Amino acid sequence: MFAVTILGNNSAIPAFGRNPTSQFFQNQDCGILIDCGEGTQMQLAKYKVKPSKISHILISHLHGDHYFGLIGLITSMSLMNRVQALHLHGPEKLIDILNIQLAAANVVLSYELFFHPLTDNEKIIDSKKLEVNCFEVKHKINCWGFLFKEKKNPRSVNPSLAKSFDIPAAFFEQLQKGEDYINKKGTIIKNEDVTHAATPPKSYAYCADTIFDLDLVNQVKNVDLLYHETTYLKDLEDKAAERFHSTTIQAATIAKLSNAKQLLIGHFSSKYENIDLFLTEAISVFENTLLATEGTCFKI
Amino acid sequence: MFAVTILGNNSAIPAFGRNPTSQFFQNQDCGILIDCGEGTQMQLAKYKVKPSKISHILISHLHGDHYFGLIGLITSMSLMNRVQALHLHGPEKLIDILNIQLAAANVVLSYELFFHPLTDNEKIIDSKKLEVNCFEVKHKINCWGFLFKEKKNPRSVNPSLAKSFDIPAAFFEQLQKGEDYINKKGTIIKNEDVTHAATPPKSYAYCADTIFDLDLVNQVKNVDLLYHETTYLKDLEDKAAERFHSTTIQAATIAKLSNAKQLLIGHFSSKYENIDLFLTEAISVFENTLLATEGTCFKI
Repeated sequence: MFAVTILGNNSAIPAFGRNPTSQFFQNQDCGILIDCGEGTQMQLAKYKVKPSKISHILISHLHGDHYFGLIGLITSMSLMNRVQALHLHGPEKLIDILNIQLAAANVVLSYELFFHPLTDNEKIIDSKKLEVNCFEVKHKINCWGFLFKEKKNPRSVNPSLAKSFDIPAAFFEQLQKGEDYINKKGTIIKNEDVTHAATPPKSYAYCADTIFDLDLVNQVKNVDLLYHETTYLKDLEDKAAERFHSTTIQAATIAKLSNAKQLLIGHFSSKYENIDLFLTEAISVFENTLLATEGTCFKI
Repeated sequence: MFAVTILGNNSAIPAFGRNPTSQFFQNQDCGILIDCGEGTQMQLAKYKVKPSKISHILISHLHGDHYFGLIGLITSMSLMNRVQALHLHGPEKLIDILNIQLAAANVVLSYELFFHPLTDNEKIIDSKKLEVNCFEVKHKINCWGFLFKEKKNPRSVNPSLAKSFDIPAAFFEQLQKGEDYINKKGTIIKNEDVTHAATPPKSYAYCADTIFDLDLVNQVKNVDLLYHETTYLKDLEDKAAERFHSTTIQAATIAKLSNAKQLLIGHFSSKYENIDLFLTEAISVFENTLLATEGTCFKI
């Protein structure tokens, strides 16, 4: 399991049934909400993602379409008597914004909320199976992207082959790490004779809101899935630059240069009722492009 | 036009497709949003209420299900380049909550936002056709209800009858106010001979979140439509009291004692999937009860 579900794909003003930005990332040991625009708690219910599955919330920046749903979600979690701690990563002012609202309603959360301010490019999550790093992107206000990398998977041991070489089960963990086995007679059993390679670690990059920025290419090099905003179609390149946003062609160019396997585009401006042209334009530069349609789970 | 449209009818956690509390009141010269739970801007779009129609917003109290949608709505109004001033009435801490969020995003609104803190029971809106008074209700935190009263309508002049008595058009405004006309010969033309009485002024009371409170009866005496919360069915009277909420029977009792013409019930707990029983129970005490179903416009 290494997948991202789109909960909202629109920018700024909700429009044409599209909701402001939010995504739910899940691997074997973490459930991570990425941004939390207004209505995210309703979108979670609609797409049957239980809030109890969320272990971390990452907020990229403090434009409302990326976090106005956060206070509602964290207070609802408390009304549902959540016990599990919640880790929140976001710009440093976020905690003051939450605290003033909790204080106004005399709310004491039912669970521990650990706030971790985003600062430089750094590792923010380090679980058994996953590492998440944040990186600064260029937007009108401080803004961060997030890179999700699966940890290197252990090699798979073939138990019957291992037993045929008299390798004890106690040594299997070392086999998974790639070690050779030396038996009592001093014979070396080569690791690759009794194991096979694991699937390569998967990766997902979420670039939040950003102007077209070639510096991103190195940040997201070779990812399996790259989410890059496409607020505007290609004809509005000037408007995009002025507002620190990107066009379809620009997103696709970053995907191409960074050698991404797939590109996921979203954050559509509310001026567009139909978003089909976003796909058409992006594909002209980078063929393996997908539209971030709400409710879709993209499995990597 | 003296009507209220239900945008959200649920309490605390959004559930079963029901949204947190918001209503849109409209008469000839005001459009007033009453409370603004999360998702209100989407509900306005869904039910085709243009934000430009909103001249005033009233926030009853600072529990999230009554105001978490406000920051999204007021910033969206700015993104839509609103020019018209907006009058916001709410608990005094509300403005700090908005300002900290506007500052975090470097937002300067495109329009003037006038904030009026709610204090005692007082007149908060006084337009040509409407008067709105606030009154304190008993809830866990400071909370206000709102009483909407149409101003006395002018009498209707019958122009052909008036002309038959040689009353000049310049005197019609005085006729509307109920004055008699004295012609050049000194003959008194009785007002009621050339006019007929206006429809009686209409009224709507919104009692916000409240414990069962007999003091309310005098506040809302004889209203045409009384909105009273019914968070719980009658069997949860103890829970209702503990949480400063009301049951169906309690809301209907207030409607009966205050001699309301109609009762509108809402703010249903998220524990109830089906809300039919709310109506059944309320009707057993006060027959003329209506369910505050979302999207319905109640014309008074």
